[in-house]
Amino acid sequence: MDYQQILEEIYQEIQSELTEGKVADYIPALAEVEPNQFAMTLTLEDGQQFSVGKSKEYFSIQSISKVLAFSLAIDTYSKSLYKRVGVEPSGSAFNSLIQLEYEEGIPRNPFINAGAIVVVDALMSHFGGDYATLEKVMTFIRETSGNSAIQFDPIVAKSEMEHASRNLSLAQLMKSFGNFENDVHEVVKTYFKQCAISMNTEDLSRAMIYLAFKGKDPITKKQFLSEAQAKRVNALMLTCGHYDASGEFAFHVGLPAKSGVGGGIVAVVPNVMSIAVWSPRLNRYGNSHVGTLALELFTNKTGLSIF
Amino acid sequence: MDYQQILEEIYQEIQSELTEGKVADYIPALAEVEPNQFAMTLTLEDGQQFSVGKSKEYFSIQSISKVLAFSLAIDTYSKSLYKRVGVEPSGSAFNSLIQLEYEEGIPRNPFINAGAIVVVDALMSHFGGDYATLEKVMTFIRETSGNSAIQFDPIVAKSEMEHASRNLSLAQLMKSFGNFENDVHEVVKTYFKQCAISMNTEDLSRAMIYLAFKGKDPITKKQFLSEAQAKRVNALMLTCGHYDASGEFAFHVGLPAKSGVGGGIVAVVPNVMSIAVWSPRLNRYGNSHVGTLALELFTNKTGLSIF
Amino acid sequence: MDYQQILEEIYQEIQSELTEGKVADYIPALAEVEPNQFAMTLTLEDGQQFSVGKSKEYFSIQSISKVLAFSLAIDTYSKSLYKRVGVEPSGSAFNSLIQLEYEEGIPRNPFINAGAIVVVDALMSHFGGDYATLEKVMTFIRETSGNSAIQFDPIVAKSEMEHASRNLSLAQLMKSFGNFENDVHEVVKTYFKQCAISMNTEDLSRAMIYLAFKGKDPITKKQFLSEAQAKRVNALMLTCGHYDASGEFAFHVGLPAKSGVGGGIVAVVPNVMSIAVWSPRLNRYGNSHVGTLALELFTNKTGLSIF
Amino acid sequence: MDYQQILEEIYQEIQSELTEGKVADYIPALAEVEPNQFAMTLTLEDGQQFSVGKSKEYFSIQSISKVLAFSLAIDTYSKSLYKRVGVEPSGSAFNSLIQLEYEEGIPRNPFINAGAIVVVDALMSHFGGDYATLEKVMTFIRETSGNSAIQFDPIVAKSEMEHASRNLSLAQLMKSFGNFENDVHEVVKTYFKQCAISMNTEDLSRAMIYLAFKGKDPITKKQFLSEAQAKRVNALMLTCGHYDASGEFAFHVGLPAKSGVGGGIVAVVPNVMSIAVWSPRLNRYGNSHVGTLALELFTNKTGLSIF
Repeated sequence: MDYQQILEEIYQEIQSELTEGKVADYIPALAEVEPNQFAMTLTLEDGQQFSVGKSKEYFSIQSISKVLAFSLAIDTYSKSLYKRVGVEPSGSAFNSLIQLEYEEGIPRNPFINAGAIVVVDALMSHFGGDYATLEKVMTFIRETSGNSAIQFDPIVAKSEMEHASRNLSLAQLMKSFGNFENDVHEVVKTYFKQCAISMNTEDLSRAMIYLAFKGKDPITKKQFLSEAQAKRVNALMLTCGHYDASGEFAFHVGLPAKSGVGGGIVAVVPNVMSIAVWSPRLNRYGNSHVGTLALELFTNKTGLSIF
Repeated sequence: MDYQQILEEIYQEIQSELTEGKVADYIPALAEVEPNQFAMTLTLEDGQQFSVGKSKEYFSIQSISKVLAFSLAIDTYSKSLYKRVGVEPSGSAFNSLIQLEYEEGIPRNPFINAGAIVVVDALMSHFGGDYATLEKVMTFIRETSGNSAIQFDPIVAKSEMEHASRNLSLAQLMKSFGNFENDVHEVVKTYFKQCAISMNTEDLSRAMIYLAFKGKDPITKKQFLSEAQAKRVNALMLTCGHYDASGEFAFHVGLPAKSGVGGGIVAVVPNVMSIAVWSPRLNRYGNSHVGTLALELFTNKTGLSIF
Repeated sequence: MDYQQILEEIYQEIQSELTEGKVADYIPALAEVEPNQFAMTLTLEDGQQFSVGKSKEYFSIQSISKVLAFSLAIDTYSKSLYKRVGVEPSGSAFNSLIQLEYEEGIPRNPFINAGAIVVVDALMSHFGGDYATLEKVMTFIRETSGNSAIQFDPIVAKSEMEHASRNLSLAQLMKSFGNFENDVHEVVKTYFKQCAISMNTEDLSRAMIYLAFKGKDPITKKQFLSEAQAKRVNALMLTCGHYDASGEFAFHVGLPAKSGVGGGIVAVVPNVMSIAVWSPRLNRYGNSHVGTLALELFTNKTGLSIF
Repeated sequence: MDYQQILEEIYQEIQSELTEGKVADYIPALAEVEPNQFAMTLTLEDGQQFSVGKSKEYFSIQSISKVLAFSLAIDTYSKSLYKRVGVEPSGSAFNSLIQLEYEEGIPRNPFINAGAIVVVDALMSHFGGDYATLEKVMTFIRETSGNSAIQFDPIVAKSEMEHASRNLSLAQLMKSFGNFENDVHEVVKTYFKQCAISMNTEDLSRAMIYLAFKGKDPITKKQFLSEAQAKRVNALMLTCGHYDASGEFAFHVGLPAKSGVGGGIVAVVPNVMSIAVWSPRLNRYGNSHVGTLALELFTNKTGLSIF
């Protein structure tokens, strides 16, 4: 297939949609992003990349970091991690607190905030103090993306920490049930730094290729996860990757994928490629409006949906 | 691949597990089923079938009927159906009532009971009185399975109706929010008859082939659903097909599938085949213990998982 | 104290408030009541009554009937009734379903709908078929009020039954937990007939005097409840008598009391008198706006609050 | 009445119950209290006190402090406080988080933990830094009790702070809804110090007399609250003073009262007296087992229930 041609087509088709939706504005650092931007990058098995739009522009990966931190955590803990975090879809956001309480502090999956925070807590128990853990996560991301210059944006992280009360509430609730091992503030701070990591679609697409190829980076041949672990991450992305629009996304796009409120989405075509797309305006579920649309156009044009 | 050989291997490997788990016992009609049974059937594009075990033994399809009734309903209503039932995974069973209340009587998806009941209600509004609607559902199932002799078991249906209070509670709650159009008891009665339909794995596997081939039965060439509608059903099966173990199932098996408390599971390998498996003993999530295991062995042996 | 004088003062002071609030309009039969009406009656130990306004006008007593039905039920069942219904205040209406589910079908108190319905169910188990039970309740009310002509309004009852789905949902939920003994529809129908009983403030005030005097009607000397049972009813009215404004009412009025959406409120001044007030317009909590105000004026003027 | 005689009788009658129930053990500092102790003190209008048992023994007043802090807060803020905390009973403890979320961070009343914490936050906004506020609360308690030596126990406060996660979770949740003005940890720390105040039944009974006499201490003639404010506190104690046994307590005892997990209970007989009772073993609702019993015996013997 002529992927570059397909990307160019998508680029044309999404133009009229670039002013739809709303940039995340719960913190100033995200609200100030120029909204009508777009980028998309595919990475194939041989490392070849196809891009369209501002594929070198850095943005805040936010919840996409949960996929990478969780990958590192299951590689570190294997099955014992599942005593602390589940693998099932959750209901609506409204239910997050009651569900966490009903299930005695065990978050339903690692992609809701409570689950991602407990993953950081687990990493911190293993790797130690916040910088050590953050370094480990960044090293993992630098290795998977092949970009050793990747950093987090301290302004975004600080801004998040100033609006941390709901996440702190979730963390304290888990702690009250005994599902927390480190200092709540340190863990949440590290979590926000991890969310504030800046990447572009070229980095991100490259970083996800191990999930398209059974845990093994086909370019460097490095095995980041076992085949079963990679399947686990993909299954979680498909069922829980898009907040309360995961079912809608599975239908429209039909790929394991994870979005972030910075406007990024990563997706995996098993055995074929990894994709990253970015456009800051969000739909009402908190997922990139144009990013979702571009991925839907992509699977429609290529027939690469898993269904 | 030598599918018959693979099925024989699976048959051997599950033998030691046939006494694990517990037959559904909430109604006598299901509790009396001989528990240690097993059957599995694959149906390929050309109509060829491979079976192992008691593939001609009839059992109660229960919640598997939701897939077929929902197929009929989206074919009837198209998108307007989604005003009455959502497409997102739900959280734990505990939350079912509160979520239904919070979301003002709109069930989260057509595979939880509330959603399946509202689907029957919608069918009844279109096709009329309970027998007319039940006949329509049975006709659809007879056509997709190619078995015109398929019936429901009136003893099972009656037994269900005697333990209907929770489903009646859900239906009345939806009615209080204006999301119900017909008589609550008539709808729930029809729903139970639909759940009480008896099929064997040969029937069931055959009946699901249209979902493996973009809505079109590759044998009869009959188009039951549009490609988009078939994708919708498959996406829903993957995200919501196994109660509170849908995420676990997506990981272990990695196929769109739907289970029923009668011990049946149907699964779809897109563009390749449809599968039905049956074994009455259930795991703690209410899915067939050996059925789940057999499907996991199958995707492991064949590499046919979608991930 | 010159009670007639006090009532006349109250009558003047509430005039400007008679157009505030909104008549219950969830069923036509209640919506059609002329809204700006008012009546208030006190009954003393010796049977002397003081009234102001339309004290002979009949209105639908609605939830006030819960006090009388519960009185009959504890007299019938004594403590065993508390296995089926609690005595604690509930939270907001929003929580009613989840709380009922969490507490496994045991309603928190007999004055929320679920609790009142279970009380009727218990009465029906004891007294038999719906008419028998309804007759028993009406006989109890005729005896306590001394008015043998009291009837229920069949138009109101029928209208309620046509909007019964939420109450049916609660009843079915209780049944699913095993806390229901009779036919759900029959019980709910009887419940609505009981709610549709018509009384005026003279009847109602008279009917409540046994609760002001330790369970014994001071005029006829008939002991309707034991002293402990009367205390129980009064404690329940104080903590749970006014939906989600019970705390506010306890402060502003400071008397055990129960309201109904028909605009009536009954109150008890222990050892002194019983009071009934009526005005159809309701405040946002579903309690009579002017009725609440009139009782507040009364306790302020007389110092008869229990606090 | 011969109050001393009545207290002696109660003292005899409760002896066999002194080994029932369980001392609060969620923190070591409370768990170590000698369990089979008892004390009870009445204070009359003229300041006369009657005591039985260890009425000079100091214990941790815990939640009883909520009554005093709330008194200080309504005196400081008047009605504006009700924008931040409600006055209605809550449902079961299970619901506390969901109710707080549903009601957007406004706790239902000042006697549940979330409400008491928001009261401290409000005091801190007015009086400044934690010591200033704590001093203000202690001054209020010293003035109402007439004992200038009252202190908090720093070991208890520290021990509480080590098990603070659930309260911190509630506070962070309120903050996420904008219902928090000061540093969460400082407020919760101050709250725990306030709960750790040590008093004996003589102090406590004396301290509550202003609530029995319309806000005015009848001995010193000092007006601590307006009449309306005192009525408000009493109404709240009656409807919300005993966790999920408030309705049961209202029936058995029938007095406005507040308990603490240290085993203390204070109660008010309007216009007559204030009472404090103490016995460390708790019933399953977290209220002093013997304390509740002693108060029930007292109202039975004296007829001083408000019902």
